[in-house]
Amino acid sequence: MQWWKVTLVVVGLAALFGLGIILGHFGIPKKDDPTPPPQDLDQELLGTVMSQLDAHRIQENLRELSLKPHMATTPRDEDLVRLLLQRWQNPESGLDAAEQGVYEVLLSFPNQEQPNTVRVVSPGGAILFSARRSEENLTGEQGDPEVVQPYAAYAPAGTPQGLLVYANRGSESDYEHLKAQGVNLTGTIALTRYGGVGRGAKAVNGAKHGVAGVLVYTDPGDINDNLKLPNETFPNSWALPPSGVERGSYYEHFGDPSTPYFPSTPFAFRLENADIQGFPPIPTQPIGFEDAQQLLCNLGGSPAPAAWQGALGCQYRLGPGFLDNGQFPRDSQVNVTVHNRVELRNSSNVLGVIRGAVEPDRYVLYGNHRDSWVHGAVDPSSGTAVLLEISRVLGTLVKKGTWRPRRSVVFASWGAEEFGLIGSTEFTEEFFTKLQEWAVAYINVDIAVFANATLRAQGTPPAQSVIFSAAKQVPAPGKSTLTVYDSWLQHSNRSSPTHGVIPSLGSLGAGSDYAAFVHFLGITSMDIAYTYDRSKTSARIYPTYHTAFDTFQYVESFLDPGFISHQAVARTAANTLLRLSDSLLLPFKTSDYSETLRGFLQAAQEALGPVLTPRGISLEPLAAAVGRFEQAAAKLDQHIETLKNNPSDPLKVRMVNDQLMLLERAFLNPRAFPEKYYYSHVLWAPRTSSVPTFPGLANACEEAAKTPDDPKAWATVRKQLSIAAMAVVGAAITLEPVA
Amino acid sequence: MQWWKVTLVVVGLAALFGLGIILGHFGIPKKDDPTPPPQDLDQELLGTVMSQLDAHRIQENLRELSLKPHMATTPRDEDLVRLLLQRWQNPESGLDAAEQGVYEVLLSFPNQEQPNTVRVVSPGGAILFSARRSEENLTGEQGDPEVVQPYAAYAPAGTPQGLLVYANRGSESDYEHLKAQGVNLTGTIALTRYGGVGRGAKAVNGAKHGVAGVLVYTDPGDINDNLKLPNETFPNSWALPPSGVERGSYYEHFGDPSTPYFPSTPFAFRLENADIQGFPPIPTQPIGFEDAQQLLCNLGGSPAPAAWQGALGCQYRLGPGFLDNGQFPRDSQVNVTVHNRVELRNSSNVLGVIRGAVEPDRYVLYGNHRDSWVHGAVDPSSGTAVLLEISRVLGTLVKKGTWRPRRSVVFASWGAEEFGLIGSTEFTEEFFTKLQEWAVAYINVDIAVFANATLRAQGTPPAQSVIFSAAKQVPAPGKSTLTVYDSWLQHSNRSSPTHGVIPSLGSLGAGSDYAAFVHFLGITSMDIAYTYDRSKTSARIYPTYHTAFDTFQYVESFLDPGFISHQAVARTAANTLLRLSDSLLLPFKTSDYSETLRGFLQAAQEALGPVLTPRGISLEPLAAAVGRFEQAAAKLDQHIETLKNNPSDPLKVRMVNDQLMLLERAFLNPRAFPEKYYYSHVLWAPRTSSVPTFPGLANACEEAAKTPDDPKAWATVRKQLSIAAMAVVGAAITLEPVA
Repeated sequence: MQWWKVTLVVVGLAALFGLGIILGHFGIPKKDDPTPPPQDLDQELLGTVMSQLDAHRIQENLRELSLKPHMATTPRDEDLVRLLLQRWQNPESGLDAAEQGVYEVLLSFPNQEQPNTVRVVSPGGAILFSARRSEENLTGEQGDPEVVQPYAAYAPAGTPQGLLVYANRGSESDYEHLKAQGVNLTGTIALTRYGGVGRGAKAVNGAKHGVAGVLVYTDPGDINDNLKLPNETFPNSWALPPSGVERGSYYEHFGDPSTPYFPSTPFAFRLENADIQGFPPIPTQPIGFEDAQQLLCNLGGSPAPAAWQGALGCQYRLGPGFLDNGQFPRDSQVNVTVHNRVELRNSSNVLGVIRGAVEPDRYVLYGNHRDSWVHGAVDPSSGTAVLLEISRVLGTLVKKGTWRPRRSVVFASWGAEEFGLIGSTEFTEEFFTKLQEWAVAYINVDIAVFANATLRAQGTPPAQSVIFSAAKQVPAPGKSTLTVYDSWLQHSNRSSPTHGVIPSLGSLGAGSDYAAFVHFLGITSMDIAYTYDRSKTSARIYPTYHTAFDTFQYVESFLDPGFISHQAVARTAANTLLRLSDSLLLPFKTSDYSETLRGFLQAAQEALGPVLTPRGISLEPLAAAVGRFEQAAAKLDQHIETLKNNPSDPLKVRMVNDQLMLLERAFLNPRAFPEKYYYSHVLWAPRTSSVPTFPGLANACEEAAKTPDDPKAWATVRKQLSIAAMAVVGAAITLEPVA
Repeated sequence: MQWWKVTLVVVGLAALFGLGIILGHFGIPKKDDPTPPPQDLDQELLGTVMSQLDAHRIQENLRELSLKPHMATTPRDEDLVRLLLQRWQNPESGLDAAEQGVYEVLLSFPNQEQPNTVRVVSPGGAILFSARRSEENLTGEQGDPEVVQPYAAYAPAGTPQGLLVYANRGSESDYEHLKAQGVNLTGTIALTRYGGVGRGAKAVNGAKHGVAGVLVYTDPGDINDNLKLPNETFPNSWALPPSGVERGSYYEHFGDPSTPYFPSTPFAFRLENADIQGFPPIPTQPIGFEDAQQLLCNLGGSPAPAAWQGALGCQYRLGPGFLDNGQFPRDSQVNVTVHNRVELRNSSNVLGVIRGAVEPDRYVLYGNHRDSWVHGAVDPSSGTAVLLEISRVLGTLVKKGTWRPRRSVVFASWGAEEFGLIGSTEFTEEFFTKLQEWAVAYINVDIAVFANATLRAQGTPPAQSVIFSAAKQVPAPGKSTLTVYDSWLQHSNRSSPTHGVIPSLGSLGAGSDYAAFVHFLGITSMDIAYTYDRSKTSARIYPTYHTAFDTFQYVESFLDPGFISHQAVARTAANTLLRLSDSLLLPFKTSDYSETLRGFLQAAQEALGPVLTPRGISLEPLAAAVGRFEQAAAKLDQHIETLKNNPSDPLKVRMVNDQLMLLERAFLNPRAFPEKYYYSHVLWAPRTSSVPTFPGLANACEEAAKTPDDPKAWATVRKQLSIAAMAVVGAAITLEPVA
C-alpha cells in the first residue's frame, strides 16, 4: 500500500479504537456506579400495605385476644405473650427478631377468699343491703371464673364504716362545697361518680377532709345518655348494664409504684411499701349504678346542686345519712370492706424488631398494651388486633425480601398498663439512654375503636403533618367518597393561623403508654383511634369500659360491625409508621411547634400578663424566646426544601433529621417538676390552671393568686417562667444552623 | 476482496472497537467516580501543625496576656476579649467565625475604699498588729493599682473579733480535734492553712462549731519546700515570697451562684442573695505566711499535733489566745474586718469556630479561661497563650484552604472561672441541648505549665488512648531522645491489666472549666498540662498561685525558660484536638472504661462487700452490669476493627461514632446526687470515702457506717448501688448492637 493509504488505515483504526474507548467510558454506566438514589418513602409500597391490611383478619385477631379475661400477669396474659412471640417469630410473616422483657412489678389485687363488700348497716348492726360482688352474667362471659371482682387497684385494705355523703366527682371543690353546706365529713363514706378528676384523687381529696372510705360509680347520665334499664342496655344496646362496674388503677403516678425512675430489674432500688407515694390513703371501692341507685336515691340531707344531679331517676342529696322515709333507717351507716393486697408479679413486654436497612440506629416505635381488666375486647385488644395485622403485613414483606424499612421499626406489646402504664414505663427506664438518643417517634394505638364515627388523634405538634398525610390516603369507613382526613375535619376541627381549618390534633396527657415516651423521654409521640360523633352521644367513654361487658360480641355488634373502623385505624397508623420509618427526610414540621408556642405565649400574655405586670414580672424574655424559635423553625423549613432538591449527601440529610428528632428532646428539663414523677417535658406536663399555656407557669400563677402576699409563690412563678423560656430557647438552638 | 477477507477485517475492526470500549469502561476511572476515600486523620497535616507551633509566639502571647492584672470583668479583661476576637477574626490566621457571649453574673469583690483588715487587738482595745493589706512590691508589678487586695471571694462582710485558735486545714476532723482538746471554739477566730479541704469548707466547718471568723494562709512547708526568707524566694527563686497571698473563690459549688441550672441571660431565674447556698457563712480572709507567722508563733495553748506543724520556724500551738511571754498580751483578740460585696457584672466568653467539612454537627471543644486574679501569667495565661498559638496555626491552614477539619472545632475563652468556673458553666447551661447531642469531646488547657518536668493529663477513660497517641508524637522538651509519652511514663505510671505499664491518667474533679462538661453534660473531657517532678518538690501547687507574683518574669525565669514546655503542651493538645476532629472513627477506646469499671467493682467487693453482705445487700447485680459492659465494649472494639477495613458507608461509621460519643452521656443520671449542683455523672461525682469505687455508693456506705442502726441510711446505700448498676447497664446498652 502507499504510505498515505497506510496512514489512513492506521488513523481510521486508531479513531475506531478511540471511539470505542470514549463510548466505553462515557456511554456505559458502571455497575456499582455513583449515587443510587437514597432510600425514600415508596408510594407504591404504601399502597400495597394499605390494601393488604385486612378487616377480617383484625376481627379474627380480636376474637382470639378477647376470648378469656387476661388481666396483667394472669395465665391468659402469659398465653398472649406466647401468641405474640409466635406471630412475630413466624418464618413467613414474622419480624427480624422478637423477645420477651420481664419486670417484677408491684400490682394490687382483691382477695378471692375474702371479697370486698359494700353494705348498709342499721344502727343496731343488721346488714340491710349488700352491693353486688360481681357483674350480672348477661352473655356468659361474665361468669368466667377468671373475671376479677370489681375493685380499686392500690386502694388500701380496711373496713371503714360511717354515714354516707354524696361528693359528686370527688374533686377538692366538691368536698369544700359539702363542708360549706355544713356537712361534717369526718368518718363518712363518700359516694362519688367517675369523671372530672382522676380515680385516685377522689380518695386523696376526701381523706384530706376526714372522709374514711370512698365509693365510686358510673352515672348513666355520664356514660349511657341516660339509659339505665336492662332492656335499654347491653346486650340490647351498647349502653352499660346496671351491674357494670369500672375497674381501674387508683395510683396517682405511673410506672411501677415501688421503683420510680428505676427499671424493675433485679438491680432496682425498691421502696418499702410504706414509703410509696401516690396510693389512695383510704379504702375505696367501685360499684355499679344499680347499687349506687339504692344508696343515692335513699340519701338524706340537703339537695345537691343541679350540676351534681345525674340520671338515676331521683333527686341526689348530700347526706349525711339516709332519708327519713327511705329504705334504710336514717342513721344507718355504710360499711366498706376492702381486702386488696399488693403483690410483686412478673409482667412481660413483648418486643419485635424490623432492622432498618439504612439507619438501623434510628427507631420508630409502635406499641399497645396487652393486659386488660376482664376480656378487654375494646381495651386493649382492639388495638392489639390492629398491631398484629400491621406487623403481619409488614413482616410478610420483610420475609419475602420485598421491603425493609430505612429506619428500624420496633413493635411493642406492653404489660400491666392497666395498673399504671407499668410495662412501657419500665421499658423507658431500662432503655433510657438508647431511646433518648435514637428514637424518632412513638406511635400508640391502645383502644383502636371507641366508636365508628371519626378519627381521633393526639400528639405533639411535629406529629400533626405526618398524621394528616396518612389520613388523607385512607378511605373513611362507610363513606365511600371521603377520606379519614375529610371525615375527621368534619367532626373535629380548628382554625390554624398557618394552615386554615384543619382537624384538631389533641394533646397527650398520661392516659396510655405514650406517657413515658413523651413526658420522660421527650420523644415525638402520637395516639390514634376511631371514636364517637360527639353530637350523637355524651358518653364519657365507651360505656362498657373496664367492665366484664367489654367483649368480642360488644365490638362486633355495636362498636364496629364489619371491623371497617378497625381497618381504617390500621391503615392510618401503618401509613404513619411507614412515613416515619421510610421517609428520607423525617416528615416532621417544626413550624407546627411555632404555632403552639405562639398560642401559649398569647394565652399567657392575655390571661396572665395583667397579673404579672404589676408584680414586675415581664413576659418579654418568653416572647423573645418564642420569636427566636419561630425564626429558627422557618429557616430550617427553608433549608429542608433546598435539601429535598439535592439529598445525595447522607450526612447532610442525617444532620437535619437529627435536628427534627431532637427538637422534642430539647423541651425536656428534668428539674422542672421535681415532685411529679417522669414529667420533664416543659410544654405538656399536667396543667391544673385553665389558661392554655406553659403548664408550669400557669399552675404557679394559679397558686400565687391564692397566696398573693407570699414572695416564695411569686418566686416560683418567676422560676417557671424562666424554665419555659429556657426550654424554648434550647429548642430554637437545636433548630438553628449547626456551626 | 474475498468474503473471508472482508469478514476478517470486519471482525478485526469490531474486536478493536470492542477492546476500546472495554478499556474505556474498565481502564479509566470516571472523574467524579465512586467513593473518594472518606476524610480521615492526615499524618502529614499533623506533622505540619506540630512543626508550626512556635515557642517564641507562645512567649509573646504570654507577655501580652499577662501585661496587666485582668481579673474577671475588669477593663483589662475586656481588652483581652477584644484581643481574642481580633485574633480569631484575623483574615489571614483567624477562624471561620468568632463571637462574644455575655452573661450577667454574681461576683464578689473587696471594697477599695474600705480594705479588709486583720488585726491583733489588746484587751484594752489597742491595735497591736495589722496584717499587710497588699503584697510587697518586689518586681514592680505588685504596685499596679489594678492589683486586687487579697480576699476570700464570696466570704460575707463582717467584723468578728475573738481569741485566736489554730485549726490546721479547717477540716471537720480538725475542728473536732480542737474540741476534743478542750478548746472552746465559740466566738473564736480560726487560723487555718491552705490545702486538705476546699477553701470554703474551712469556714463552713468552723461555723458549725461556733467559730466567728476564719483566716487562711499558705504554709511554706506546703508550698515552698520550707523556704521562707526573702532571699530564698521570688524573685530569687520560684518560691512564694513571705507577703504572697493566695486569693480564691470560697463558693462551694460552681457556676453563677445566683442562677443554678439557668444560664445568666435576661430570662434567668435569679435567687435572692439570701437564698443562695454554698457561700462561706462567716467572714474569712487570706493572709501571707509573714503575717501568719506573727499570729501562729505567738499562739498559746497546747502544742498542736505533729501533723499540724509547718515550716514557720516555731512550734504551732492550738490556742485559744496568745503565749504568756509572746509578742501580744495573752487575752488579746484577733479582729477580722471584711468589706466584701457581691455585685452583678457582665462577664464574657469568646467563642471561635472552624466549621467541619464533613460532620459540622459534631463538635470538638477546646477551652481555657481568660480571667486571672492578678497578672495571671501562669493561671490562666500560660494556657491562653497556647490556645492562641494553636488557633493561629489551624486558622492559617483554614484561611489558606489547606485544611478543614472533618468535625467542627470550637475554641473558647471562658470568663470568670476564678469565681467558680462561671463562664463555662453558664455556656453549658445555655447550649445544653446542642452540646448534649452533638459534642464529641472537651479539651481543657488551663494552666499549661505548672512546671517543666512532665506531662500531667486528666480525663475520663475514653480520652486515655487519644492522649497517649498524641503524646507519643511529641518530643519531650529538653530531652532530645524521648517523647512526651516516654517522659510521662517515667514520672508517673501505673500497671494496667490490659495495657501493662502506662502513664497515669488522672481523673477529673472540678478544678477547672471541664467540670460542667464532664459532670453536667457527660462529655468526654480532658485536661492537659506540664507539671512537676514530684521527687523534687512537695509544693502543693506552683508557689505564686493566685498571688501578685504570678508574672511573665516568673514564667520566663523559673517555670519554663525558652517556653519549650509550653510548646510541648501546645503540640500534645493540638495533636489530641486533630485526632478528635479529623479521625474518621473517633479515637476513643471504650474498653478502657471496662478497666475502670472492673477496678471500681473490685474495690467495692473488697472494701464494701464485708459490710454489705451481712446486711443482705448484694453486689451481684453490679457485677453482672460490669460484665455486660465489658462484653459490649469488647464486641464494639471488634466491630470497629472490621469497619476500619471497609469504612465507605458514612452512616455505618456515624453509627459507631455516635455510640462512642454517647457512651459518656450514658453515665449521667440527673437524679443521682440532687443536692450537688451539676453533678450527674455517676462515676465521677465527688467522693468523700477513701474507697476508690462508685462515689455515690462509697459515700453512702461511709455515712451508713456512722449510723448503722438507721434503716434509711442503708436504703440510701441500696439506692446508690442501684443507680450505679443502672448507669453501667445503660452504658452497656449504648454500646450493644443497635437493632
